[in-house]
Amino acid sequence: MWTVKVVSLGVVGLSLSLELLFWLFSRRRSERVTNKVLFFPSKVACVEHIFSPTLPHSHVCSLPHGVDTSFSRLLRYILSACSSLDLCLFSFSNMDLSRAVLLLHSRGVTIRVLTDKVYSAISGSQIGVLRKAGICVRCDVSAVHMHHKFAVVDGRMLITGSLNWTLTAVQSNMENIIITEEPDLVQPFVKEFCRLWGLNDSAQDLNSVTD
Amino acid sequence: MWTVKVVSLGVVGLSLSLELLFWLFSRRRSERVTNKVLFFPSKVACVEHIFSPTLPHSHVCSLPHGVDTSFSRLLRYILSACSSLDLCLFSFSNMDLSRAVLLLHSRGVTIRVLTDKVYSAISGSQIGVLRKAGICVRCDVSAVHMHHKFAVVDGRMLITGSLNWTLTAVQSNMENIIITEEPDLVQPFVKEFCRLWGLNDSAQDLNSVTD
Repeated sequence: MWTVKVVSLGVVGLSLSLELLFWLFSRRRSERVTNKVLFFPSKVACVEHIFSPTLPHSHVCSLPHGVDTSFSRLLRYILSACSSLDLCLFSFSNMDLSRAVLLLHSRGVTIRVLTDKVYSAISGSQIGVLRKAGICVRCDVSAVHMHHKFAVVDGRMLITGSLNWTLTAVQSNMENIIITEEPDLVQPFVKEFCRLWGLNDSAQDLNSVTD
Repeated sequence: MWTVKVVSLGVVGLSLSLELLFWLFSRRRSERVTNKVLFFPSKVACVEHIFSPTLPHSHVCSLPHGVDTSFSRLLRYILSACSSLDLCLFSFSNMDLSRAVLLLHSRGVTIRVLTDKVYSAISGSQIGVLRKAGICVRCDVSAVHMHHKFAVVDGRMLITGSLNWTLTAVQSNMENIIITEEPDLVQPFVKEFCRLWGLNDSAQDLNSVTD
């Protein structure tokens, strides 16, 4: 009789523990998955402390300091890359975003940039700067526009929306950016980036010769 | 002794049933939430069967029939609206998308369209067509571009991405669209739409007088 009682209570305990563990696991998973939205225009504020965290907030510059803005959050998400950053961008002329990409490159993060051929050549484009720094850049050479504006951080976080990586988009226009780690949303973009990167392989070889 | 055994087994049974129910509920919830991605350019195919489901696939037109494309899926997501459709669009000249919006309007779906003032006046824009049909349209009158390209279906499904609602974007450019029901992603867009809609209230009153 005692054996039956002990076994029964053991099973109750085990079952309840499993239930609790399962609940905690589900809760932690949903807390871990990032799903954020940023809207623009962003307030204009100093972002030096994002690039140099040791820099005191009172360093000399006329912009407001220590302000959390849509743009500072976007920079932080990009700078969170540890191993890889894949960029698929129609237009890239924002110098702070370019600085963030160069900083990641100097940290050894593998960066691939796919961009629109026409817009890569416009005044102020950062594409030439990235290429000169040794970052792997490919231009889409099809007759149509490569109108994407997305980034994939470490193959697990997607940053996408209406925002071109320009100063006007960040500081003036009404724009949106989604930051998500939902695999159902991230993985199709990872796959599409690889497809487009592969498609423009031979074109890139041609660019390397003519540049 | 028998009472203890029966109670213990009852607790085991109850605990296991609760665990099973919790698991089934979590699984069903994650299956229910839509998270889809569409890439463009879309294959060009006939979409008449989407507007008239009773129409045989063999109706007279030179385009391929019965083909499931990114564009036909986008149309289906838009046409799934039962009560409301909020559109926040930089550029809207695609006639099939305009037809879908007009069809929803005729079904009694409440439609609100917020668009960029400059682009609402360009050749081929559908904004005038929607306004003439009695759909509530407001133009953003700020000095900057209202560069969003998103739609909220029934306040629960978000359609957003790089794709402007134009023929070039759908049939030529490389573009993306996300369709999601994740509340963390949808709700900020619902809130932002209401904010922008409210902001352009007085401007709209002015438009009504001058139009």
